[in-house]
Formats: sequence, C-alpha cells, structure tokens
Amino acid sequence: MSLYAVILCGGRGERFWPKSRRVLPKQFIALFSRGSLTQETSARIGPLCPPERQLFVAPAEFGSVLRKQLGAAARLAFEPVGRNTAPAIGLAAAYLHRQDPDATMVVLPADHLIEDRSGFLKAVRMGAQLAQQGLLVTFGIRPDRPDTGYGYIQLGKQIAGKAGLTAHRVQAFKEKPSPARARAYLAAGNFVWNSGMFIWRVDAILAAFRKLMPGFHAALESFGTTIGTRREKPALARLYREAPAISIDYAVMEKADNVVCMRGAFDWDDVGSWLALVRHTKPDSAGNVANGLLVSKDSSNCVVDSDSGIVAALGVKDLVIVRAGDAVLVADRKHLGQMKQLLAEIAGHPVGERHL
Amino acid sequence: MSLYAVILCGGRGERFWPKSRRVLPKQFIALFSRGSLTQETSARIGPLCPPERQLFVAPAEFGSVLRKQLGAAARLAFEPVGRNTAPAIGLAAAYLHRQDPDATMVVLPADHLIEDRSGFLKAVRMGAQLAQQGLLVTFGIRPDRPDTGYGYIQLGKQIAGKAGLTAHRVQAFKEKPSPARARAYLAAGNFVWNSGMFIWRVDAILAAFRKLMPGFHAALESFGTTIGTRREKPALARLYREAPAISIDYAVMEKADNVVCMRGAFDWDDVGSWLALVRHTKPDSAGNVANGLLVSKDSSNCVVDSDSGIVAALGVKDLVIVRAGDAVLVADRKHLGQMKQLLAEIAGHPVGERHL
Repeated sequence: MSLYAVILCGGRGERFWPKSRRVLPKQFIALFSRGSLTQETSARIGPLCPPERQLFVAPAEFGSVLRKQLGAAARLAFEPVGRNTAPAIGLAAAYLHRQDPDATMVVLPADHLIEDRSGFLKAVRMGAQLAQQGLLVTFGIRPDRPDTGYGYIQLGKQIAGKAGLTAHRVQAFKEKPSPARARAYLAAGNFVWNSGMFIWRVDAILAAFRKLMPGFHAALESFGTTIGTRREKPALARLYREAPAISIDYAVMEKADNVVCMRGAFDWDDVGSWLALVRHTKPDSAGNVANGLLVSKDSSNCVVDSDSGIVAALGVKDLVIVRAGDAVLVADRKHLGQMKQLLAEIAGHPVGERHL
Repeated sequence: MSLYAVILCGGRGERFWPKSRRVLPKQFIALFSRGSLTQETSARIGPLCPPERQLFVAPAEFGSVLRKQLGAAARLAFEPVGRNTAPAIGLAAAYLHRQDPDATMVVLPADHLIEDRSGFLKAVRMGAQLAQQGLLVTFGIRPDRPDTGYGYIQLGKQIAGKAGLTAHRVQAFKEKPSPARARAYLAAGNFVWNSGMFIWRVDAILAAFRKLMPGFHAALESFGTTIGTRREKPALARLYREAPAISIDYAVMEKADNVVCMRGAFDWDDVGSWLALVRHTKPDSAGNVANGLLVSKDSSNCVVDSDSGIVAALGVKDLVIVRAGDAVLVADRKHLGQMKQLLAEIAGHPVGERHL
C-alpha cells in the first residue's frame, strides 16, 4: 500500500480576523510564530507522506498562496466552490484512485495544531494498518477539559492497540454538548473529541460513497473518466454544481457500519479562536499572553497578538487585542463567539468591506 | 500700544500617547482633524496679532517641527531646558521689551482648544484695554461642569465689562478641588476655571518679576543686554541654569496686588486627556466616539482615535482605543489618570523606550 495525505485547505478562518482575512485565511497564517498552519501540517505528515504524496484541496483563489508556501511542485486540487468536507474528500479520492487504485489516504484539515509529532505519526501508522482491513478510521482525541466546542465520539469495544493508543468500535457520534454533558463525557472516560482527521483506503471510501451518496458517487465516477483530459475542468464545475454541501461525518461516518475510532495519545488543537493562544503561550504573572510586544499596567487575562510595534494595555482585563496590518480588534473574551456578527457589521459598513 | 502673542509650546503631552510622542508632543498633533493645536492657536489670535507679532517659546528640540508647521519666518525663542511657565514668560518679556518697550503681550498655551474665535478675540480686546492700566489680566472660563482637573479662581468685585464678558478683582486662587468642592464652586456662580492664558503690558509683568522674583528679574535684565550679540546664547544657558522651575500662577499671579480676572463667554478646553474627544465628537447611538474608522458590535462608551485602517470593537465598554503609527493603546477610561505610570512601564521595558 501507498499512503497519501489529503490536506483540506478550505475554511474561512473568520474567527481569526483581522490576522486572517478573506484573501489569507487562518490556515495560511503563522499563528504561533512558526510556519503557516498548512506548512506545519505538511511537515508533520512528511515522514510518512513525502511532498509528492501530498494533495492539497483548496478553493481556486488560494492557488498562489499555496504555491508560495509549499513550492511550485505542490499538488493542488481546486474546488470551484466550497461544499463542505464530503465533496472535497470525494474529489481527492477520485484523483488518487485514478493514479493508484491501491492507495490509502489520510485526511488532514490544514488548520489544526499538533505538537507531539511522533505520537501523531504513530497513530497514523496504526490507522493505516487498520485501513487495510477496509475500515473507515477516524482519529479521536483524548479530552483534557469539558470543551463544548467539539463533537464527541462515544467509544465501544476495543479492537486493537494497547494503552496510550487504542482503536475502538464506535458506539455513537455526539453533537457539541452542553457544559453539563461535556463534564459527564469527560468523567465517563470513553468519549473522545471528533478531530476531523481520517484514514482509509481510497476504494473503501469510494464504496461508502456508492452506498450512502449514490448520486454523488455516480457523478464522481463520471468526473473520474475526464481526469487528465480537456473535459476535466468543465466536468469539475458540473460535479460541484450538483454536489451537496455536507460534511463527511453526516454523510458517511455516522451511517457506515465499518467505522472505527482511534484514541490518540497526542495533543491536538483545532485552533478555533484567539483563545487558542492561551493554550500555547506562556502567560505573564497577571495571566496575559502575548504574541508580539505587550506592555501592560493593571491589566490581566488579556490575549494579545500584534504583527508589529507595541500594544499597551492600561487597566483592562479579559480582552483580546489583535493588531494585524491595517486593522485593530479589541474584543471581550466572552464575546468571541460573535465574531461572525462583528464581521457582518464590517461588511455592511460603507468602507468596511475592504478590511475583511 | 502694539499687541504681541506669546505662544507657549512646552509640555510633554504624555496623556496623548501614542498619538503624541516625545518627538512630537500633543501641541504639534492634529487631535481634531484640523491643523495641529499650535497652528490652531496661531490662527486664532491672528486677527489681532499677525504672524510677525507672534513669538513661540519652545524647547530647542522642537525647532524643526515648529518651522514645518508655522513656516520659516516664524519667530521662535528656544528654552535650553523646561522650567515651567514663569521663566518662559520672563524670557518672552525680555525679547519683546528689547524690541518694543510699549508692548502688550497675550500669553497663550499652544495646546488649548477654543471653538468660538470671535468670543475669544472679544475677550482679548477687552483684556488688552485693561492691561493699559498696568493690570495683570488672567482669562477665567465659565465652568459648565464640576471639573476636578482644573484650578479655579474665585471672582470678587466687577470692575469692567457687561453681561457675557466681565472683569473682576480676584478674591482667591483655588487648587484643583475635590468633587464636592467643585460642585459647590459651580453652584456658587462666582468661580471660573483658571485657563493659563494672560494679558499684560510687558513693563507690568517685568515690574511684577522685579518685586516677586528679584533674583530671576536681575538675571533677566542681564540676559536682555546680550540679545542680538554673540553673548546671547551662553547668557541664555546661564539664565536657565539658575531659573527656578515655577509656574507664573505660583510665582506672580497669586501674590501680585494688581491682578484682575476676566470671565469669558467663549468655550475652552485644555484637551487634558483622550476624553476631550468626547466633548468634541458626535457619539454614535451607543455613546462611542471615533476619530477614524470604528466598527463596533455590542460596545458602548468607547473613545477611539485611529490614524489609519479600521478599529473593530466587540463586546467592550468604557475603553479608550488609540492606534497611532506603530503603537496601539487600549485603556479603561477610569484608568487614564495612570498614563504616566504606563509610560514608565514602557520606558522600563527592554525594547519599549523607542516607542515613547
């Protein structure tokens, strides 16, 4: 078997405005002073999938930034429009199947952060083994807090692995929980976060599409016959015009009967909001964390990200302060959930749109 | 009589950091989207004192910004070091006395804001008349709120003027009051704010110096003999080395027996902190005022000044947010009194100093 990485580069990253913008969303920015999240993801899987076995699925508009960050040789598949993860994964599977019918693919969102690379690779290796049995393997993450921002997976019988890294039948997929429910999940011990990372043989996921999304599967097969011909581009446009906008979880994972879930031992962060900075940056004695130069007086629990110059805080607390290019965001930590509404305000302002 | 304007351009303007910096303090910046406060002050007195009868007293380091803002012909007197207002006024009096022994001088701090120019000029005209009697005339401002940030003057018997613009003997100078006392002053009706603007004949203020600061007056006379000679510069350095750092209020006004105070009918603002923006800018429906582009969501009573780009506020209130050049300030309104301490923090930071 050959292992390929499919790196999903869709997503708007709105919650990281103004550092992420429409033209340069979260997955393409360096949030933690290293490479961009996409570059990090590529490097992380590199030891198992060298660049020539990495396929990046992205909106066409991000072609130039991808080539800039990954080099001219990077293999890119462009989606004409965003249609959530099921069509993106289907498209990647069609390309890989055409190239190598024996391929196994690991699906990685471009915008996640994992610090323990060897723990991650160990899990990928085990997942690749399981995939050879025709299983659809999902990566579950051991929760360390009752987070209400993630979906959970309730694990069933262990089918492989040993302490630290095990694989299980799936008892149930669970939506983002209430705080009380999240605490119960954490206490129960057999719940993991649904990471959105997967591994399977290409023929296995195509078989699942055939069974669970037969219309899309037929369109995908038809598209597959055009790959490498001059009919490919219009066929791709047609495929996406009719593709349902649906996640792979809803479309496949929650319905298929050959799903297993690994419980990983590695850290994982989907970098969902500016508060992720708190988890990856050493705070000062007043609980402020800063990426960039912060000088503060009588200020506490602030999260600061600044691309240049100085940020000075006086007598404030619980704020997120971001300076990026021509924009400054000052938000209360508890209000970060309303970033979408703030961006809508900006879009509606006579001269605001250009700053998105 | 000839009327000259002496415009005092000292002062650090620290409370307007980061828009004002050490190299460009408050009096040289355009706080309200017009000219700089110094340019405004020059233009305001222009109808009575054309540029050739304006003298700017400033630290030598501000020479280039003054010439840039006022033109190469502007008449500048440079202080070797800052020594508060009494020496600055003494120095100006020495220069004017040498040029025109019959001169009358109106003293204007460069960093005040007055919108009602004709009301102001009317008061200057009346003050100039009174000054011909040898009186030391100070401009009092009718208070419209119980402000605790100003000194007050208690007015005595009216000696001139009529409703709207009167002149009075001074009963007492009062320090910055407590809130209760400020409310009592406002209710009493015969208290005015001490504006720091004055008008007098040059020979009258020199006579007051002779009586109340005899040492300084002797040094000033000695300096006067060097004006226009090559001994002037070292004599100026000597004058300032020995000059006491004292305000004209403490040194002269509170002690002299020929002081009168006008009660002006014009508006006046000494632009003492970022909150001055609130008094000169129309608020939005949530009470936010902005100089520059602000887009806000669930935010109220914020004061925003931004030199470029966009400031976005989400779920915050009572903040002062300033973006100026390479710096961003986020401060709670109630903590603005601690700007000095914040700047001390910045000065003490390994790479902070360059941002002051």
